[in-house]
Amino acid sequence: MSALLGIDYGATHTKMLLVDGAHGDGPVVARESVRTGKLEELAESVRTFTAGRAVARFGITVAGTLDERSGVVGRSANMPWLDGVSPARTLTDLVGIPGVAVQDGVATAAAEAALGAGRGVEDVFVIALGTGIAGAHIVAGEVRAGAHGGAGEVGHIVIGGTHRCSCGQIGCLETLIGGAQLGRRWAELSPATGDPAATARDVVLAAESGNQGAEDALAQASDALARALLQISALLDPGVIVIGGGVARSPRWTVVPAFEKARRDATFHRLPDMRLAELGVWAGAHGAVLSAAEAPHQGSPSGLAAATCGSPRPAGG
Amino acid sequence: MSALLGIDYGATHTKMLLVDGAHGDGPVVARESVRTGKLEELAESVRTFTAGRAVARFGITVAGTLDERSGVVGRSANMPWLDGVSPARTLTDLVGIPGVAVQDGVATAAAEAALGAGRGVEDVFVIALGTGIAGAHIVAGEVRAGAHGGAGEVGHIVIGGTHRCSCGQIGCLETLIGGAQLGRRWAELSPATGDPAATARDVVLAAESGNQGAEDALAQASDALARALLQISALLDPGVIVIGGGVARSPRWTVVPAFEKARRDATFHRLPDMRLAELGVWAGAHGAVLSAAEAPHQGSPSGLAAATCGSPRPAGG
Ligand SMILES: [Zn+2]
Ligand SMILES: [Zn+2]
Repeated sequence: MSALLGIDYGATHTKMLLVDGAHGDGPVVARESVRTGKLEELAESVRTFTAGRAVARFGITVAGTLDERSGVVGRSANMPWLDGVSPARTLTDLVGIPGVAVQDGVATAAAEAALGAGRGVEDVFVIALGTGIAGAHIVAGEVRAGAHGGAGEVGHIVIGGTHRCSCGQIGCLETLIGGAQLGRRWAELSPATGDPAATARDVVLAAESGNQGAEDALAQASDALARALLQISALLDPGVIVIGGGVARSPRWTVVPAFEKARRDATFHRLPDMRLAELGVWAGAHGAVLSAAEAPHQGSPSGLAAATCGSPRPAGG
Repeated sequence: MSALLGIDYGATHTKMLLVDGAHGDGPVVARESVRTGKLEELAESVRTFTAGRAVARFGITVAGTLDERSGVVGRSANMPWLDGVSPARTLTDLVGIPGVAVQDGVATAAAEAALGAGRGVEDVFVIALGTGIAGAHIVAGEVRAGAHGGAGEVGHIVIGGTHRCSCGQIGCLETLIGGAQLGRRWAELSPATGDPAATARDVVLAAESGNQGAEDALAQASDALARALLQISALLDPGVIVIGGGVARSPRWTVVPAFEKARRDATFHRLPDMRLAELGVWAGAHGAVLSAAEAPHQGSPSGLAAATCGSPRPAGG
């Protein structure tokens, strides 16, 4: 029996996951996390990881912009060796396994919808609260990419505040709850004790030890998220909203109060079930496996946004 | 050759439209506008209008809440005789033609998408700027209703300002550009000359004669609309946004500057084509015809949100 390989190719760590069967929802055969290297080093890790196993196809996540048809990376801020490269094609040439590339946010969202907190639900909106914020609306297993592949940009809906976002707008959701922004908001609210370079986890630890500025920054983030939840409900009316990502790992400071505030503030809205993500740090790798499973159906209604390179053939490992 | 009858059953006027063929996009055979009466009077108008013609089926719009499966009206603020009634079933009993009911906003949007400014485009978001604001996202001819039928509520996304909306929220788009609100905003900005009961048209006339408060109210409305356009683009990424409705009838004061501002303020957005609606006051009637055409396919992916009553049979007229 052959397996599918999921590779979550992150800026610091790369997670590899081997799943039995052809559909991407089978049992996990093996998993491993290695330090990230360039594609030649990745190929070496893949060879070691899959040695002696029949791998039908791989999926690899891209942390950056990806042309879905060609599989070529536009720009990867933290992995510049991928700019202009087709990682799936290169890896196929190096390891002899056909594969597809998928954007990391799309992979994570698809995995949560299909295998995590959204499983069994027709219509799921997934939000990943990381350094940046990613969103994806998945209906009947299909990511609703929009007319130009730009849908789901929940991090850049204007919610409030006066902060200039990395996208150029003022007041994006990401300026208030993005993992890279929480420290700055803390330092503004508490100039004496706040640290603009603090991570989301640092801010939570400070709040837990009673730092008022940290508590205020998290409350402001949580309120902004609640407003975004109502906005999503008004425009899209999903059946379930699933929230994951690093900032969601301390849910009682951000996500849970946002769920509560959205319920309190809802007026006409038909609120969705609001749930925490379930797959944790392996979500991206599971999503890469799903892309590998979907690849032959690209262009069909159930296809993920993924780019195939190479043709299916038995792999040597 | 038989025809389809569209009835746009408005609070003051009722528009009837007869379209050749079975698909709803054929030539218009006849149209007529009459003063609105209760369903018995409407039946009489329908008999006169269709006399001597073979009508296969009708569609009728409902200005109010509609249970799509049963075809029963929940509440119609301006036509209370419809509360708890199935207008399609009642009219079928009176005129002997099978028919379906459809919400007026859905009908208008579906018509603009299929036959008006959105025709030929796969993915269209339609906004109707009327007394209230309606929105609908139509992809491949299908209205994306959401998990609970609540999608497209663009009038109630929070955009800014301090005004309490009819829905209970503060700062909804509708508080700044809804036709029933423009006069109030004018009166606030220009207490000496503004009239809180003014219609959108009154406010435009005042602005055209140089009233500063009226100009400011329209500029504020236009800016709010621009922000909503960017929000829709970020979350849904439609191929085209079409804007119609009463407030859009003076586009150079509201819709055209909103298009321009959205283009200026866009950052990461993949902006859709932004177009004015084309069907004007007959859009609802055309949408009712489309519902009549779609009725046999209800429950299929291409079905509009409509409720069938009676079974197809030749009509006497
Ligand atoms: Zn932004
Ligand atoms: Zn509202």
